[in-house]
Amino acid sequence: MKLQHVPTKADILEAHNIIRSHIHHTPLLKSEMMNQMAGASLWFKCENFQKAGAFKSRGALHAMLQMTAEERSKGVATHSSGNHAGALARAAKVLGTAAHIVMPNNAPSAKVSAVRQYGGNITFCEPTLSAREQTLGEIVEKTRAEEVHPYNNYDIIAGQATAALEAINDLPDPDFILCPVGGGGLLSGTLLSAKYFSPKTRVIACEPLGANDTWKSFQTKSLIPSQNPKTIADGLLTSLGSRTFPIIMENVYDVITVEEEEILRAMKLVWERMKIIIEPSSAVPVAVALQNHDFLKNRKIVIIISGGNVDLNKLPWYA
Amino acid sequence: MKLQHVPTKADILEAHNIIRSHIHHTPLLKSEMMNQMAGASLWFKCENFQKAGAFKSRGALHAMLQMTAEERSKGVATHSSGNHAGALARAAKVLGTAAHIVMPNNAPSAKVSAVRQYGGNITFCEPTLSAREQTLGEIVEKTRAEEVHPYNNYDIIAGQATAALEAINDLPDPDFILCPVGGGGLLSGTLLSAKYFSPKTRVIACEPLGANDTWKSFQTKSLIPSQNPKTIADGLLTSLGSRTFPIIMENVYDVITVEEEEILRAMKLVWERMKIIIEPSSAVPVAVALQNHDFLKNRKIVIIISGGNVDLNKLPWYA
Repeated sequence: MKLQHVPTKADILEAHNIIRSHIHHTPLLKSEMMNQMAGASLWFKCENFQKAGAFKSRGALHAMLQMTAEERSKGVATHSSGNHAGALARAAKVLGTAAHIVMPNNAPSAKVSAVRQYGGNITFCEPTLSAREQTLGEIVEKTRAEEVHPYNNYDIIAGQATAALEAINDLPDPDFILCPVGGGGLLSGTLLSAKYFSPKTRVIACEPLGANDTWKSFQTKSLIPSQNPKTIADGLLTSLGSRTFPIIMENVYDVITVEEEEILRAMKLVWERMKIIIEPSSAVPVAVALQNHDFLKNRKIVIIISGGNVDLNKLPWYA
Repeated sequence: MKLQHVPTKADILEAHNIIRSHIHHTPLLKSEMMNQMAGASLWFKCENFQKAGAFKSRGALHAMLQMTAEERSKGVATHSSGNHAGALARAAKVLGTAAHIVMPNNAPSAKVSAVRQYGGNITFCEPTLSAREQTLGEIVEKTRAEEVHPYNNYDIIAGQATAALEAINDLPDPDFILCPVGGGGLLSGTLLSAKYFSPKTRVIACEPLGANDTWKSFQTKSLIPSQNPKTIADGLLTSLGSRTFPIIMENVYDVITVEEEEILRAMKLVWERMKIIIEPSSAVPVAVALQNHDFLKNRKIVIIISGGNVDLNKLPWYA
């Protein structure tokens, strides 16, 4: 991690400059039908169309481009069973170095093949946090690769911030941004971009009720990790970290939770009406918009669609 | 039907002018991964993002906007179990009149709800062509509504031609356009737009082997309707009509067929890689691109993605 402080305005602009040739400037889509249902003007920032299918490509590339060529040549390493794994493997491939990915032996096969496809070196381990950390430690010791944490890392946060930066550039002065929250990397970056580039915009954290550590932490003003979180929004099972929690506490307007059926309904609705594939985590802020809160009525709202990586053979409505 | 001749260049330009405020100018999307797999430069003309989820909105609106206000006030009628039904119902709603839709009593529930959602008046009948035609005849007699045939109609053909017109405007001089063919309305329009606006572009008709009446008709130079066609590409079960067949014979470069597994694979691949929802009919030209024909190698190719209406509860890979 190069940045040793909460990313500044200049850090985020610089992050966007150095990653932009390696990522997509994703579109802001809208749908008349969704607007009618929500009673508001919704703009979907489509990171499902991002490289490797998720916003994670932004942070992974930024973290790697912050390293010197020599550091980068030793490769990068992480443990992840999700989109960060694929994004880091792709970033390493693009930049011509190795990615060592520790994955639990119960990781979804779609995620494993994504990492394989980008040429990542996978090491499987038992599906416990301690096994993951220990295996990663051994690999880092052996290879001298640099560990890139998926969210508790300022380089990552500055990279993820570029999604909201683009949205604000494309659609000035939104009233609200609805953003999903898991470990808080995307949310922290979104909060910082709103603060620096669109200070009147309010950012709402959107979280599954079954993994509501952010809601609890926000209510109690103390970092309370989830115990046994459970949700179909598999990207949001993680809890906030020591670097994301303070940024969120200081800047978030509110934290709103949604139930599992709401997530499922919102996901299916977007597939049916907008003809785009979004993953369950991305359906969480959509579900918040569909709760028809009075304060969102007729407002201009950006929804961060975090990704579109789903296993088409295991769709939740067939479960 | 107002146009009594094969649409001219001026007819198609005029069609685009009169419908453009009621339809989406859909994007041309590309994917590095799909290009690699096809060994060519593919541009997806995304009519799955069109109003009512399919290119059919273009023709339906054009046919209705050609009528006088008085004619239109009597409403429109058709028999259809597919996208034409939803598109005509929406067009009638937008233009403030009635749509009478005859549907077979075994029509997919997703298509029935699409028509209902746009306020169409549905009459169910036995699922035979004669029952459909007889029921429609009775309704037309009673209501004086104008029948709008889904493809064997020059107004419809001129409307469908506007999809390729937009694609050619956005991406000049494609080497090829790959277009699915069922009744031939979209294909006829595409052929005419290529001929008038991009004469060097060659158009290839893409057809399921299980519903290969166009292929047979092209080979034998005579109109041979399908007997018991069978394919998951439910939009392509119909056979060419008396008005589409001659346009196709005169202008098409080739007709290429694909097998059911190729359609399924292409559809899933587009969902997975591009994160967009396309219906099986749209996967047919994608499957042709994935056959890696030598003459398509490294060429600039537009693929007409005809629609995105699928029943998410009955996906073909769960069958």
